[in-house]
Amino acid sequence: MPNYKLLIEYDGTRFSGWQVQPDRRTVQGEIENALFVLLKERVRLTAAGRTDSGVHALEQVANFISTQNDIVQNRFLRSLNGITGPDITINEIAQVDECFNARFSAKARQYAYHIATKPLSIGRKYAYYCHAPLNLEIIQEASTLLKDTHNFEAFTKYDPEEEHYLCTIEELEWRINTRKILFRIRANRFLRHMVRRIVGTLLQLGSGKLSVDDFSAMIEHQEKKKINFTAPAKGLFLEKVFY
Amino acid sequence: MPNYKLLIEYDGTRFSGWQVQPDRRTVQGEIENALFVLLKERVRLTAAGRTDSGVHALEQVANFISTQNDIVQNRFLRSLNGITGPDITINEIAQVDECFNARFSAKARQYAYHIATKPLSIGRKYAYYCHAPLNLEIIQEASTLLKDTHNFEAFTKYDPEEEHYLCTIEELEWRINTRKILFRIRANRFLRHMVRRIVGTLLQLGSGKLSVDDFSAMIEHQEKKKINFTAPAKGLFLEKVFY
Repeated sequence: MPNYKLLIEYDGTRFSGWQVQPDRRTVQGEIENALFVLLKERVRLTAAGRTDSGVHALEQVANFISTQNDIVQNRFLRSLNGITGPDITINEIAQVDECFNARFSAKARQYAYHIATKPLSIGRKYAYYCHAPLNLEIIQEASTLLKDTHNFEAFTKYDPEEEHYLCTIEELEWRINTRKILFRIRANRFLRHMVRRIVGTLLQLGSGKLSVDDFSAMIEHQEKKKINFTAPAKGLFLEKVFY
Repeated sequence: MPNYKLLIEYDGTRFSGWQVQPDRRTVQGEIENALFVLLKERVRLTAAGRTDSGVHALEQVANFISTQNDIVQNRFLRSLNGITGPDITINEIAQVDECFNARFSAKARQYAYHIATKPLSIGRKYAYYCHAPLNLEIIQEASTLLKDTHNFEAFTKYDPEEEHYLCTIEELEWRINTRKILFRIRANRFLRHMVRRIVGTLLQLGSGKLSVDDFSAMIEHQEKKKINFTAPAKGLFLEKVFY
């Protein structure tokens, strides 16, 4: 049966995250319902990253198996976007190899976190306003400790289903724009809340509430006790998935 | 009496423009009401540009005369922003020379217009989605005809109060970003709807509905009949005012 891949943008503000939950408006739920209207069959979407409530995506990737071969690309996409409404935009649909799995075939994911250093009116749904003055040099220096493979247990929730906490950070960067500070991170995998906990911890470090030694101990010895700030969901964007 | 200058950001989506109107939510009205709460006196704001309904501002400038000298900057600003709410952010208040007039002292204004070339979910309140394919080279070439001083009567509404239609365009640029095309224009003055009509006309030109000769005739001979598209307000930003 044909396997289809979708590239999906969404504004996460009014969703209870990606994953289907009873009585909640979720991205997966909305797209699966729209597909049911068009395909007249129930399909199940698999996504590269199950984003939390309030998290945005510029290019989420998902796939589904359908019995139907006749999904005409442009017209089908327009109908699909008409049903899902403006919070979700499906930018592309393509038939892919039957082995393709949006989650397990992914080699890396890239997230960005947007921090405003003054209160914003324009675009305030898309950034976290941090009112504490930040020492960006310390933040940038400490960030390099995250690179390569580490046990990220101190940067996630306990999860009985997680087999291990090893993640490989391939790239990370801090960039200062006119109105925002941008943090970008690419890794082979991310644990639950991991980007938001990394950002929250680095903001504490940058505002003098945590030392570089404390931060290092979290990475090297999984010292959990220091964590007390998970940066809010609205600043987080799933930017890209690599296959 | 002291003269105060404000630097103001606003998300224009839910305002009927800058200027006070009975029974409408306007930026001027909201800020004047907030100032009345704090100052216990009615003051009148003068703005550099009276933006239309739905137009945004990154740095609008306004001034007002008050009898009061004791406007403590940071605390006053925080209170003011608390009252106006998140759609308006007053970033700065400063006492200025008594001759300063936000409107008449301004030497130039800079606007930006944001065009999306695909439907957006994230940030869709801040860009106009143009679905027609655009020839940007022709747009850029024709734009240069706007530079310097011209009669812009063909790019505005008839206004009996307007003494003349001469404007001097000092700078203009088209820039292609990842998700948007940006048009930026700086002039000594702008007529009503002028930026949106220029953008609307240039988009018609770029999608083949208007020739460069037609466009040139609008600038050289004020040929009005060709105008039939005013680009929507939501893509327009007042970016900066120069004194």
